[in-house]
Amino acid sequence: MSVPTDESPVTAAMLAIGDELLSGRTKDANIAHLAATMTAVGIDLKEVRIVADDEAAIVEAVDALRKRYRYVFTSGGIGPTHDDITADAIARAFGVPCRHDDRAMAVLAEHYRGRGVAFTEARQRMARMPEGSEPIENRVSKAPGFRIGNVHVMAGVPSVFQAMLDAVLPTLQTGGTVHARAIASPFGEGDIAAPLAEIQKEHPKVSIGSYPRFRDRNFSLEIVLRSRDEAALAAAEDAVRDMLEHR
Amino acid sequence: MSVPTDESPVTAAMLAIGDELLSGRTKDANIAHLAATMTAVGIDLKEVRIVADDEAAIVEAVDALRKRYRYVFTSGGIGPTHDDITADAIARAFGVPCRHDDRAMAVLAEHYRGRGVAFTEARQRMARMPEGSEPIENRVSKAPGFRIGNVHVMAGVPSVFQAMLDAVLPTLQTGGTVHARAIASPFGEGDIAAPLAEIQKEHPKVSIGSYPRFRDRNFSLEIVLRSRDEAALAAAEDAVRDMLEHR
Repeated sequence: MSVPTDESPVTAAMLAIGDELLSGRTKDANIAHLAATMTAVGIDLKEVRIVADDEAAIVEAVDALRKRYRYVFTSGGIGPTHDDITADAIARAFGVPCRHDDRAMAVLAEHYRGRGVAFTEARQRMARMPEGSEPIENRVSKAPGFRIGNVHVMAGVPSVFQAMLDAVLPTLQTGGTVHARAIASPFGEGDIAAPLAEIQKEHPKVSIGSYPRFRDRNFSLEIVLRSRDEAALAAAEDAVRDMLEHR
Repeated sequence: MSVPTDESPVTAAMLAIGDELLSGRTKDANIAHLAATMTAVGIDLKEVRIVADDEAAIVEAVDALRKRYRYVFTSGGIGPTHDDITADAIARAFGVPCRHDDRAMAVLAEHYRGRGVAFTEARQRMARMPEGSEPIENRVSKAPGFRIGNVHVMAGVPSVFQAMLDAVLPTLQTGGTVHARAIASPFGEGDIAAPLAEIQKEHPKVSIGSYPRFRDRNFSLEIVLRSRDEAALAAAEDAVRDMLEHR
């Protein structure tokens, strides 16, 4: 259940792009980072998709997401090699040509000149973006991401993804902060499900989740309350603690 | 790029369900496990989606995925509490009622009797599944998952998800195994992108990916070759190694 809100929330979706995520070779680290960052600034991450380095799959997913959510963030596929097809796919989704961006070319030319490295045609590929895009700064390795419309196209390497997200954050409309409380339950879900459901009904401004863990042959249970309304959150927390104390 | 195949590949998709994945509170562990398992048995995982504990979102995603891929695997939302709505959502997607399954009720009744724990109405909720489902065994904590049509509904707790996937695997049609080779490149992507693209063109049965990492202020590059055809894979590997040696 999404966190209830009085005002219309700012929504976001993510599209992680890359064969290596779907083959199991690489364990994605960007989804969790984006999720935590969106929560911290009060934006509701509503959906994530992972697709392969496949143009049709990228186009379809980005089109579905950009029409539905306020912001879309993509990761992966913007390097210089033949399997980096994200910029072309995004251009196709927006129906515009993909071309070398002058600003990105200047940044990269200077970067490689400074390192004494040839600014090859392959490296110039990293300056390609759909017409009408704005570059997203990359303080880690220079090759920029880009924003077109509400879609932010960023790198798959986690340190670069994070740097690009840092660069993007000040440009985003943010929502009210979501506050959270976690309460350890000494009882299993089956023992408290009924009273917990009652508390959820009585506290509609709070989203109450119940998260069991199984470790070392033992279950533990955490009850998590989330709300943008601190008073409503405190009242729901009291109700849950009272329920747990009197079982 | 998907791994090319002569025969029609067996495809799969995953739907991970849970607010906690989108808020950043929980880092998903099931996607990477499913991805590695599918690769090991030769099934192509083509798409993953993550949605909240929201019936409409679950219904829409599962409907989109089940019509497009041979198998769908879901994780999360099948416990006894009010926020566990996956069984109802899947029933709605299939247009059938959700009801207590006699086999699941028997397994759970015996389990709780043996532990001297009350088989509460909340715990009985874990025996609910869409009409026409087959239970999926859970050797960790007994409460079963279920399969309806091509959709396999499994728990979100990783040890339980893994146990359920183990139970499901023998029932799946599997494809030819995908073989992989990883080659460390002493050169950056920008230096080898052009010859690597040539090699990709000359070896259409092999999928060639290039994966940079940035750690401790240093980039490293791994070239990964994947194919169901071992001879084609060996030829492409020779071509890549030869290219790297003669730069």
